[in-house]
Amino acid sequence: MAEKVRVGVIGAGVMGRYHCETLALRLTGAELAAVADIDGVAAGRAASLSPGALATTDHRALLADPSVQAVVIASPNDTHAALVREAARAGKHVFCEKPIALDLASADAALAEAARQGVKLQVGFQRRFDPAYLEARQAIADGELGAVELIVGTTRDPSPPGVEQLRRSGGLFTDTAIHDLDSVRFLTGLEVVEVFATASTLVLPDGGEGFADTAVTALRLETGALAVLTNSLRAAYGYEVSMEVMGERGKIAVGYERQTAVRRLTAEGVRHDHVGRFLDRFGEAYQREMAHFIDCVASDREPEVTGADGRAALALALLAARSHREGRPLPAGEGG
Amino acid sequence: MAEKVRVGVIGAGVMGRYHCETLALRLTGAELAAVADIDGVAAGRAASLSPGALATTDHRALLADPSVQAVVIASPNDTHAALVREAARAGKHVFCEKPIALDLASADAALAEAARQGVKLQVGFQRRFDPAYLEARQAIADGELGAVELIVGTTRDPSPPGVEQLRRSGGLFTDTAIHDLDSVRFLTGLEVVEVFATASTLVLPDGGEGFADTAVTALRLETGALAVLTNSLRAAYGYEVSMEVMGERGKIAVGYERQTAVRRLTAEGVRHDHVGRFLDRFGEAYQREMAHFIDCVASDREPEVTGADGRAALALALLAARSHREGRPLPAGEGG
Amino acid sequence: MAEKVRVGVIGAGVMGRYHCETLALRLTGAELAAVADIDGVAAGRAASLSPGALATTDHRALLADPSVQAVVIASPNDTHAALVREAARAGKHVFCEKPIALDLASADAALAEAARQGVKLQVGFQRRFDPAYLEARQAIADGELGAVELIVGTTRDPSPPGVEQLRRSGGLFTDTAIHDLDSVRFLTGLEVVEVFATASTLVLPDGGEGFADTAVTALRLETGALAVLTNSLRAAYGYEVSMEVMGERGKIAVGYERQTAVRRLTAEGVRHDHVGRFLDRFGEAYQREMAHFIDCVASDREPEVTGADGRAALALALLAARSHREGRPLPAGEGG
Amino acid sequence: MAEKVRVGVIGAGVMGRYHCETLALRLTGAELAAVADIDGVAAGRAASLSPGALATTDHRALLADPSVQAVVIASPNDTHAALVREAARAGKHVFCEKPIALDLASADAALAEAARQGVKLQVGFQRRFDPAYLEARQAIADGELGAVELIVGTTRDPSPPGVEQLRRSGGLFTDTAIHDLDSVRFLTGLEVVEVFATASTLVLPDGGEGFADTAVTALRLETGALAVLTNSLRAAYGYEVSMEVMGERGKIAVGYERQTAVRRLTAEGVRHDHVGRFLDRFGEAYQREMAHFIDCVASDREPEVTGADGRAALALALLAARSHREGRPLPAGEGG
Repeated sequence: MAEKVRVGVIGAGVMGRYHCETLALRLTGAELAAVADIDGVAAGRAASLSPGALATTDHRALLADPSVQAVVIASPNDTHAALVREAARAGKHVFCEKPIALDLASADAALAEAARQGVKLQVGFQRRFDPAYLEARQAIADGELGAVELIVGTTRDPSPPGVEQLRRSGGLFTDTAIHDLDSVRFLTGLEVVEVFATASTLVLPDGGEGFADTAVTALRLETGALAVLTNSLRAAYGYEVSMEVMGERGKIAVGYERQTAVRRLTAEGVRHDHVGRFLDRFGEAYQREMAHFIDCVASDREPEVTGADGRAALALALLAARSHREGRPLPAGEGG
Repeated sequence: MAEKVRVGVIGAGVMGRYHCETLALRLTGAELAAVADIDGVAAGRAASLSPGALATTDHRALLADPSVQAVVIASPNDTHAALVREAARAGKHVFCEKPIALDLASADAALAEAARQGVKLQVGFQRRFDPAYLEARQAIADGELGAVELIVGTTRDPSPPGVEQLRRSGGLFTDTAIHDLDSVRFLTGLEVVEVFATASTLVLPDGGEGFADTAVTALRLETGALAVLTNSLRAAYGYEVSMEVMGERGKIAVGYERQTAVRRLTAEGVRHDHVGRFLDRFGEAYQREMAHFIDCVASDREPEVTGADGRAALALALLAARSHREGRPLPAGEGG
Repeated sequence: MAEKVRVGVIGAGVMGRYHCETLALRLTGAELAAVADIDGVAAGRAASLSPGALATTDHRALLADPSVQAVVIASPNDTHAALVREAARAGKHVFCEKPIALDLASADAALAEAARQGVKLQVGFQRRFDPAYLEARQAIADGELGAVELIVGTTRDPSPPGVEQLRRSGGLFTDTAIHDLDSVRFLTGLEVVEVFATASTLVLPDGGEGFADTAVTALRLETGALAVLTNSLRAAYGYEVSMEVMGERGKIAVGYERQTAVRRLTAEGVRHDHVGRFLDRFGEAYQREMAHFIDCVASDREPEVTGADGRAALALALLAARSHREGRPLPAGEGG
Repeated sequence: MAEKVRVGVIGAGVMGRYHCETLALRLTGAELAAVADIDGVAAGRAASLSPGALATTDHRALLADPSVQAVVIASPNDTHAALVREAARAGKHVFCEKPIALDLASADAALAEAARQGVKLQVGFQRRFDPAYLEARQAIADGELGAVELIVGTTRDPSPPGVEQLRRSGGLFTDTAIHDLDSVRFLTGLEVVEVFATASTLVLPDGGEGFADTAVTALRLETGALAVLTNSLRAAYGYEVSMEVMGERGKIAVGYERQTAVRRLTAEGVRHDHVGRFLDRFGEAYQREMAHFIDCVASDREPEVTGADGRAALALALLAARSHREGRPLPAGEGG
């Protein structure tokens, strides 16, 4: 058996914690070596999953450990780009949660540093590892639909984060819509040439300090195909993610509306549950993306979800945010 | 345009009333000429659908009208066989609701009289005119499943009739299960060689005078294929009818669990309606079977659902009832 | 029984023919009195549904018949407004297929003439009579969703019309999207304040003479709620109509993905049919809207789908078409 | 952290291998200490999941290891009862795959030995750990359905085992139907009082040496409620498991017909996948039952699925087999 890849995780919130569990408990090729979080208790709890793992409130201690080969960045979005650069400079391979940055200049700097240091950089678009997205993409690539014509994508979170968290995340477009923007590119292999977005604040209390929580984004792709995304920070029925791709010969639809194999039939009708949380829907995909990253590090291969993918989705998310602010459609390539 | 077929309807209950509406309002080739019901008000109301139609409490008046060419029998089950004979002797073509009789001797006498008089006799197995059953049957006949192996059928009524009505109907096997027994024959083209049934009284108040309201019927078909039917006189969620046929190469399932195109997604889950009443599920099939009957009369063709089909399903229903009483499986052909 | 309302139908294409059948065969309160179509054979075939009905290639003959009380206009879209005016001037009540006109000035003239003549005017938004839309609207009006936040609507036709037919229809926005635009208003009771549309020609042969066949329309409603519509003139899997309305407390989704109660389970997976044609999905609604119109005429009540509703949806459709041409979002009220 | 429970696994076929993976990779409280299989290669491969684990072709070597605290028996069915006795005599706690034995005398001897030695004994009815079965059971226990009236259960395997494997398994009733028999008891909390079964050989080549591969089993429960099970060793569309429980106030249905979140809509209709293998459907439940067993051993609690449960289901399975052989319904308690 090969040596285990020793991994440090920066950020022990919900997502970072889940990555810690994957590294400590589910992947035989990885070892959770260290956890850093400004909340020392959270860091300690996550580190305790792995005997001997370091827990620290200072991510620099983690990066200074020469035995750590790779780093997972799951801290707030506004720290991603700087941490990618720091980790790369420390010679660590990097798995970075989306978005890779909150502006394109920072994204470019992060990508450049990773390239300079020769470390691998994978971005956390976990849907690319979900069996349903993979199957849909393969079918489209195989020409099952013929030319793609129309895409409808949806991501709706069960309930909004606090405004402070939203501020650090960069907002609805860079934090949530970015998944759908990436999925359009991933499923169709087509690039976006025009973006129009419009948004409202309907959910956040007291006007949400101007943050949008409900948005519609219309995209024109290079072939003339159209796409539309709807995003919301509230869905009373749980977590909703779907994407339909329609083409000449039919439609492929990715999306669940049921989680547990139970239906109840009563005088009120037929009732079943819905997907509750993002980890219920994508837990397996999160495990697979991490397995892929560990495998790439261990076997010195390039990850399939690159920094360039992270940069491309970010550019579209920023463009959507600007389109909303300026009230007009914008051509892609205007910078974001 | 050909002359309209003048039809008399005997029995103006729910089903008879629906046939009256079909004849008066939906079929251009038929004319509702007369309605007989011992409840004169019901007869009058149904007759008023058709200008000039006779309303009577005496079915003999209806049969005595020489302008009436065909008769629909939708009276209580225990009157069916005698009315078929009477109508046939009066020279009328006969559409008879299921069951054609409550015992085999009466069924045989009814069939014999119809044959003697040269009148057409169609039995009301409306599922044979439902697009879903027809599609399933065609697929099976085309060999889509290969050899049939296992069938699961279900008919569940929303709520039980009164005990008096149940008595006149002959009970659960001759009134309800008979549909599923016919469907097994219709969908597979196979005959039943053994019947085992067991039943309980769980729904009817005060023990239901011994009438069963919940039953399981296991069938062995001539090829060794097996079938099982479940029937109940109560389903809190509405009317449930389904039949699955499994074979070498797959399964074909007939059955709805949704009527209206609305779903509600809330914190309680996903909810939609169910089929409420038998007319909601089979209204179109009831219209089609009547159109077929009228067409057979008008163009002098034999109906596709014959008295022999009615007799065969009755024989199985009686056998199931006897199997339940005697607590043992019975070979088909023992008479019922 | 009241006198039957005598109705003339102008236009005997697919939709006009269906209205003829409804009037002749399904509604007891109506009588199909006359059919006009420039194709005399089609007029004759439709008129033959009703003994004694007039068939003519000249709609003026129909309008000149003093016994005709009401007129159904199902001719090409570019004739609607003028025919409404003509029929109103002849003192006939008018049921007009959507759109009521192809420009707002014509729509206004048609509404004014109907008002001047004191005749009823109903526009053919049949979804308002579909049980699913009605149930959804009632639930929303009852506050089941709380405030409405996000709407996603879809209408996709199985295959495109010819370019000549498309030209006469006014194009995708006035012919197809107009249904969804009306449904947004109907389901939510909210008005649209901004429209952005973008469209492509992906389906029509040879560039379709510039007609769009695939479109995305984003709407902002008066409360800040957002809506998005996708329309296509081709859907290989059949006819697709759906609308989701999401609010504070959940989501209500209208839409079928299955028509016949049969599923096939094979080694290739689980398969069922989809809705094939608009008449399969909305046949009942078409009958109900016509019954409503006849009832309004017979009992001298105002129809629930008014000329003003037809005008409002047209204004939005024209605005969407202009937004697409000009490449920018437009405030409603700019005229269309 | 507590000491890990050291576990030996006897049998490294599909199921034993899966238990090895769970013990070695997924459960932090367990350690895979040894694997025995008469196929030394399979034993070795499974043991390699855990550094230092013993691989042996002689299960007695495994039982002789004093550091092994618990044993998982996943060998052929006809060895279960003797291995339970041997393991218990060696002082090991025992997790035994279903069925616990192939006759009641052997089952009784195994239970007696486990009791005598004071070791824990859990039987592998993994559905009792599936979230859907658990939710259904809780709802029924909470009275959501009122009195239970009718149950329909189905287990269909994708393809039959070889005849030799079938012989060692005891056949369809003790190997497959036993799951459904246990589920009836588990979901309803009711005991069976009468069994009738009928079966055919439709799938196995050359008559399958008389082994049944397709069966219907009708059950009467102590309250008069009825149940029916259908079992098949072939389902071209994959693995099918479902159970519907109907009562006064509605129905609860457990069962999936879809695995991956992808649907394809084409001119052929709507298509999605089905559950392919039992591990796809119940992988999580297998992990949970093993976690429960480890937890019971570590914390000295009694497992919730006892030897008595294993014995009760076996008694019903044997009774069903005998009912089929003798062609008559049999009262429970007749021994099997």
